Amino acid sequence: MTDRFYTALQYAHRNQGRYIEELKKLLAQPSISTSPENRGDIQQTAEFLTSRLQELGMEKVNIHKTAGHPVVYAEWLHAGLNQPTVLIYGHYDVQPVDPIDLWLSPPFTPTIRGDALYARGASDMKGQMMATIAAIDAIQHSGKLPVNIKFLLEGEEEIGSPNLDSFIASHKKLLACDMALNPDGGMIAADIPTIVTTLRGLAYFELRVYGPAHDLHSGVFGGVVHNPAQALCELVAGMHNADGHITLPGFYDKVKPVTDDEHREMTRLPMGRDYYMQQAGVPEIWGEVDYPPVERVGARPTLEVNGMISGFTGKGAKTVIPAWAMAKISMRLVPDQDPAEVHQQLRQYLVDHAPASIRWELDNMTGGPACYSDPSSPGVKALSRALEVVWSSKPLLKREGGSVPVVGSMQKHLGIQSVITGFGLPDDNIHAPNEHLHLPTWSKGIDALIYFFYYLVD
Amino acid sequence: MTDRFYTALQYAHRNQGRYIEELKKLLAQPSISTSPENRGDIQQTAEFLTSRLQELGMEKVNIHKTAGHPVVYAEWLHAGLNQPTVLIYGHYDVQPVDPIDLWLSPPFTPTIRGDALYARGASDMKGQMMATIAAIDAIQHSGKLPVNIKFLLEGEEEIGSPNLDSFIASHKKLLACDMALNPDGGMIAADIPTIVTTLRGLAYFELRVYGPAHDLHSGVFGGVVHNPAQALCELVAGMHNADGHITLPGFYDKVKPVTDDEHREMTRLPMGRDYYMQQAGVPEIWGEVDYPPVERVGARPTLEVNGMISGFTGKGAKTVIPAWAMAKISMRLVPDQDPAEVHQQLRQYLVDHAPASIRWELDNMTGGPACYSDPSSPGVKALSRALEVVWSSKPLLKREGGSVPVVGSMQKHLGIQSVITGFGLPDDNIHAPNEHLHLPTWSKGIDALIYFFYYLVD
Repeated sequence: MTDRFYTALQYAHRNQGRYIEELKKLLAQPSISTSPENRGDIQQTAEFLTSRLQELGMEKVNIHKTAGHPVVYAEWLHAGLNQPTVLIYGHYDVQPVDPIDLWLSPPFTPTIRGDALYARGASDMKGQMMATIAAIDAIQHSGKLPVNIKFLLEGEEEIGSPNLDSFIASHKKLLACDMALNPDGGMIAADIPTIVTTLRGLAYFELRVYGPAHDLHSGVFGGVVHNPAQALCELVAGMHNADGHITLPGFYDKVKPVTDDEHREMTRLPMGRDYYMQQAGVPEIWGEVDYPPVERVGARPTLEVNGMISGFTGKGAKTVIPAWAMAKISMRLVPDQDPAEVHQQLRQYLVDHAPASIRWELDNMTGGPACYSDPSSPGVKALSRALEVVWSSKPLLKREGGSVPVVGSMQKHLGIQSVITGFGLPDDNIHAPNEHLHLPTWSKGIDALIYFFYYLVD
Repeated sequence: MTDRFYTALQYAHRNQGRYIEELKKLLAQPSISTSPENRGDIQQTAEFLTSRLQELGMEKVNIHKTAGHPVVYAEWLHAGLNQPTVLIYGHYDVQPVDPIDLWLSPPFTPTIRGDALYARGASDMKGQMMATIAAIDAIQHSGKLPVNIKFLLEGEEEIGSPNLDSFIASHKKLLACDMALNPDGGMIAADIPTIVTTLRGLAYFELRVYGPAHDLHSGVFGGVVHNPAQALCELVAGMHNADGHITLPGFYDKVKPVTDDEHREMTRLPMGRDYYMQQAGVPEIWGEVDYPPVERVGARPTLEVNGMISGFTGKGAKTVIPAWAMAKISMRLVPDQDPAEVHQQLRQYLVDHAPASIRWELDNMTGGPACYSDPSSPGVKALSRALEVVWSSKPLLKREGGSVPVVGSMQKHLGIQSVITGFGLPDDNIHAPNEHLHLPTWSKGIDALIYFFYYLVD
């Protein structure tokens, strides 16, 4: 270990308490991007980050307006023209908090219990953003940053980044760089550092089934009217067959098969039936019977009902035939599926299967294709070394089940790949009640990012 | 037409404005039985009726407490021991009003538009109760009531009358009578007076499907976890086969077949495909392909999803796998199905079909068997004559699709049948936004009830 690493690491360790306090302030902001009522909180969060980036010595720190929530930009370009420029991506928005009654401490009152910091966004991904800021802070207090840095922090990731693609497309010069660092990935276990090489894409829809003109008395019309809740159930049930495969016409046509190498690598992962049963708390796993669990999540496209509502859902009994039923349905896509084609496949399925006794509407809400990062690129190689030093274990190169639309946009408009990592754990409860961040792992993550920035020029 | 009829009818016509005003006051009470927050309104409605029955010269007027909402009782027994005693049933509770935004005038601000009075409960059944009170009022102002009268008005019909059965069972002597008049039936059209001879029973359930321990990120777990919303859809979809038949094991075993006579009578009704498409506002009817529409509603048992909820149902996109999904499911039963047996049939279906990848719970909420009234009984005969005089048309004897648990309780505990009629129309929007009462029909109903009380001793 060279001296410059040592100084920065020491500084980071001595200042961990301060970094946690800064993170707590960021987590106290209820920046829920999907709720119109949190619009002001989103703005305040952007301003908080602006201040922090200015303290970090960043320049051109600016809140860029978009058609939705703003983008925070900052840069520091004094490492020299021959040194690489890293575009650091982050999102400062968070998921909604319902069901709120299941939280043990309020979601926007960051609370440490045991080794973990509990708050909405602690793991996904305010904690990851703050780890990156902390690493740069420590390096700067120990010498000079070895690489040029740009920050791009968005406020709409949790609603599918509807305005980020056009922002990137219209700011190519501002955002020009050699690679992106995207710490919105995650680890498969606390002792297995992870780099994501593939991200699934997303296609998100709202399907509404309409039956009678208004709610009907089930005694007067039951038996002659097709209940829209039942019709929706029939349509949703038909979207998978008995083997767990998705039945939309042509859905698998463009799915790139897993190579034998990848298959071997994936089956070595400690992520089998027991792992997923334990992580998800389910009595039995489910899915495509002819693929091992880890491939179902990482290498295969999936279709989920994210939400569903119809009729009377309060306490007690109301004997209505509902007038309508709604389901939010989304697909995770793999290379080379196209979200626009998937939209047409879902529409065709509905044309083929919806009965004449109901009407339906389908809204195409958001989406993006899957992405790929080259394991032999300088960024992935530097991060691999960094993770191996800190964890004393070679990092896992992983196909990720989640979707990060920005990775696709950067690839498309800036011509760069992203180095995708992160220090969140599978049981951090992201998108769920009691989200938390494992602080010992987070601290190792800061160390690894310090190594990463040095190794990029080493 | 004899003089005594004439005097009472004239009185009713002269006082119609007053009766409507009284009805409006009754309708202004938001007596929603399923909502705990309307408990006080329920009590006030019971007190309002108490006052009105006292004005009517009724005796022993009393609000009887139950484990739930109270029962209003009143009697007038001075017609003579040899004259029949009629127990008049009514319910003063109403359905919830959601979706509230579809109402053109507030549901508890009774409003006349055209020929109709709009308010929750106008047709089901405060209007019907008030028609009965008006008929007795008119007779009393024109002479002496020819029959003995008892009133039994409950506040829990719209939640399945959970406490009425035990109330009747424990008040057999108080409620002893020769027949019941139950004006909670309805007409199939404004020109077709209707007497209900069969009522469908009800079995109401809440089914909850549990998947993961909490909401999960669909990217991290999609593909290996059985989505509870999808699993619920699969279970619900399987409850009917492609021909519209219900698949619960043994569900049709005790269903009494329609006789050839009944089949002939029913197929003469003007209630075919077009009728139901128009009344329900659906693009096509649905149901058991081997039964005509009117038999599907009146003579066959049905299964409905009354409500359904799971996951994220707000605006925008949230990529969760929900932790649970819920459906309210109810069956309309025909003679001789038993609600307790149907409960076991549904439970068996779930045991047979629920996959190991989810957990489920089933709550048996409320229910009652189907009922039958003899067309040759004195009550049905007197009402037939009355309806024929007023409408100049023989009344239709109808199998009703709806359920009135009290009819079964009275048959069981008091040993009497009910004369079931009513002056609500199919397009009154009962249980739905913009419920209303057709006032010209209601006025004819008051006339018919005046005749009915006289014909009982004629």
